[in-house]
Amino acid sequence: MTVDVVQALSRLLSAESLVTDPDVLQAHRNDQAEWAPAGMPCALARPATTSEVRAVLDVARTLRVPVVARGAGSGLSGGANASDGCIVLSLLRMNRVLEVDRRGMLAVVQPGALNAAVKAAAAEHGLWYAPDPASWEFSTIGGNLATNAGGLCCVKYGVTGDAVLGLEVVLADGSVVRTGGRTVKNVAGYDLTRLFVGSEGTLGIITEATLRLRPRPPKATTLLAAFPTLVGAGKAVCDIMGTTRPSLLELMDRTTVRAVEAWKPMGLDVEAAALLLARSDAGGAQGEEEVGVMAAACERAGATFVMNTADEAEGELLMGARRFAYPALEQQGATLLDDVGVPLSRIPELLAAVEHIAAQRGVRIGTFGHAGDGNMHPTVVFDRNDLDAMTRAKQAFDDILHAALDLGGTITGEHGVGSLKRGFLPAQLGSESLHLHRTLKQALDPLGILNPGKLL
Amino acid sequence: MTVDVVQALSRLLSAESLVTDPDVLQAHRNDQAEWAPAGMPCALARPATTSEVRAVLDVARTLRVPVVARGAGSGLSGGANASDGCIVLSLLRMNRVLEVDRRGMLAVVQPGALNAAVKAAAAEHGLWYAPDPASWEFSTIGGNLATNAGGLCCVKYGVTGDAVLGLEVVLADGSVVRTGGRTVKNVAGYDLTRLFVGSEGTLGIITEATLRLRPRPPKATTLLAAFPTLVGAGKAVCDIMGTTRPSLLELMDRTTVRAVEAWKPMGLDVEAAALLLARSDAGGAQGEEEVGVMAAACERAGATFVMNTADEAEGELLMGARRFAYPALEQQGATLLDDVGVPLSRIPELLAAVEHIAAQRGVRIGTFGHAGDGNMHPTVVFDRNDLDAMTRAKQAFDDILHAALDLGGTITGEHGVGSLKRGFLPAQLGSESLHLHRTLKQALDPLGILNPGKLL
Repeated sequence: MTVDVVQALSRLLSAESLVTDPDVLQAHRNDQAEWAPAGMPCALARPATTSEVRAVLDVARTLRVPVVARGAGSGLSGGANASDGCIVLSLLRMNRVLEVDRRGMLAVVQPGALNAAVKAAAAEHGLWYAPDPASWEFSTIGGNLATNAGGLCCVKYGVTGDAVLGLEVVLADGSVVRTGGRTVKNVAGYDLTRLFVGSEGTLGIITEATLRLRPRPPKATTLLAAFPTLVGAGKAVCDIMGTTRPSLLELMDRTTVRAVEAWKPMGLDVEAAALLLARSDAGGAQGEEEVGVMAAACERAGATFVMNTADEAEGELLMGARRFAYPALEQQGATLLDDVGVPLSRIPELLAAVEHIAAQRGVRIGTFGHAGDGNMHPTVVFDRNDLDAMTRAKQAFDDILHAALDLGGTITGEHGVGSLKRGFLPAQLGSESLHLHRTLKQALDPLGILNPGKLL
Repeated sequence: MTVDVVQALSRLLSAESLVTDPDVLQAHRNDQAEWAPAGMPCALARPATTSEVRAVLDVARTLRVPVVARGAGSGLSGGANASDGCIVLSLLRMNRVLEVDRRGMLAVVQPGALNAAVKAAAAEHGLWYAPDPASWEFSTIGGNLATNAGGLCCVKYGVTGDAVLGLEVVLADGSVVRTGGRTVKNVAGYDLTRLFVGSEGTLGIITEATLRLRPRPPKATTLLAAFPTLVGAGKAVCDIMGTTRPSLLELMDRTTVRAVEAWKPMGLDVEAAALLLARSDAGGAQGEEEVGVMAAACERAGATFVMNTADEAEGELLMGARRFAYPALEQQGATLLDDVGVPLSRIPELLAAVEHIAAQRGVRIGTFGHAGDGNMHPTVVFDRNDLDAMTRAKQAFDDILHAALDLGGTITGEHGVGSLKRGFLPAQLGSESLHLHRTLKQALDPLGILNPGKLL
């Protein structure tokens, strides 16, 4: 079978586009998810063109071989993990920014382009590609699209899907479909663009994207506040979101702050229950006014410390605390990074539930994340060499998903379902929605060749 | 057949929920589209609950009868027009705002609620439901969702779909599906919410929507500028969008301005090739600064007149000119209102094409619309009693669609395809995309009972 697949691929792909070296295959089995299962691919296809992508799907369809698309492999849910005998389809060679239309305020890019490259290309024309997942420096646009990646700025500017005007997609049947277009508004037909965005490679392979660019925002004013209680921090989040438009609103709990202080001492308040970091990019006097509104909300909610700065370098220093959150927790052991979302009003309940789970399971959990969107990353820290600790960590991870669902939330706000959370999807969706998902999958990929075992 | 359908419905619906009075049926045949064909329904169902909606679909499925959902009937593409023998499904009785969650910043509403009612309910809690189609005072949320309606504020705040967190939908098979949820970010599964939004009643019946609310923006500063050339106005639009974030950016051409002046004299410049109306709602000093940036862009682009005001009453007066655009054109004859979109950079070309079409077809066309989104409404004015004029008007309407497509645009930016533009959809989508649309339609509605003959 493997021989057949490789032979068939070699007939249709250039030599450069096909790799069977076992070491290379080994390196393309996984994304960055802990514990998500990964099989052994039979081949790595590295197409340079849409035609080559189509050729890969033709082989897969003919020989009934799974195709697992991947970008930089920086995913956190196992969405890009290989299944046994699959073809891994790397889009990394299709990495060009094909066009930046300054007056039209859009960019046309290939899926393998790094998010950072798109930002840079936009900046050359004085424009801005907004979506900023934490991985923006090393993740690809294709991966961002596949997971509908979020980030910090989405509290004001939306997620990846909000920045997509159109796509080129190769379907399981080998047809090449264009969705959307180059206009900001477009209601001609179904919103196929949004159907493919976030579908984790299970409905088609995105080979080109037309992305919306924006004017670069003015310089930001940054605020830091410390709270003696989680409830107080949660109240401040609701108040801020209900009265103004922060360009960023992040939370770190005590465990996270202590991890940061242990690794990169910055003089943060390690006794506070939570810190909030917020920004306004309204600019000038209005930026200061917005931050003033935020500061007042923090004080009303019982903050013991509030400071802000319009100095960009100082603002970046403060942001460092948030950027160090995950790597600081990683210093303390193996980590299981969760990605749950709850309605804005229920953040304090989520944080309390996580504390309870940590105590009950006897594990350490640092929680940080995008408070302004209700999207938090409780991160279980454990000793990888302690089997019992690993088991309890995994239980705590699952408990957090249940807690989010109990609060009317979601098992994934921005990382995707992948294989890691597949078992939890039915509990969130319900049987009717799950059935509809399967109907769509069946309609678009009747042979089940596209990333089987992921998402659904 | 009609007897069977009515009998079957009467067994499942309350007396109040079923109407067969011919005069009432007659009044429910049409939306507001000119010349879109309309058949005669066999019954009007006015369900009060999701269960009753389901019952209607059960009857439709069993007896293979088309179901045409409608809200206020204010649509402009014939999307809600009856087909012969169909059941018209009015959602007007399901018109409650079920919940406003102030801290969670969301509202849960039934489809028959007016957009205005949702805005009012949000305002009671100090919040804002942003989407503002021109019909907001009399159109329903259900209709807004079915067409993914736009409006004036979407240049900054997005279209209807951008304000939807989740839906309850009754499918053709009678199952009731919940999509999305109550969180701002959610990537658990396919984006089914966006699949139903804009699907014009062809994939399911929306029976509930969870809508995102926002803080009320600060008071707006309004700008008016007059341009001697269309190219100059188009350049100003690009410059403004490329440098700042207007909360509204509207254009009116000379024909439209003259119609407004003829109907409601305001002292507008009737010699200008185009007027631009823009707003910043950044508030305070920043609002004035943003409007200053816009004013400078207008002057650079050759504006002969630029003024702005932070006075709200005066701002509303200026906005009146834009609000009067369509009714003023209606004073001059029958109208065919188009709704095309082009990439931002191509607005001048679209306007020039429309002028050319007007001259060639010997018709009057007033063009106005949402310049900041590239979404324009060229409106053909003609004498309804002159058959030749009607023919030329229809030809001009079609020419405008072709012109938009030639410019890389869309045949509909916010009104929908309905039956009016159905014939043009293949030219925009291409055969592969059209096939995919049909595959989805077939998967969700295999018997074709949901609004057949619309969109696809």
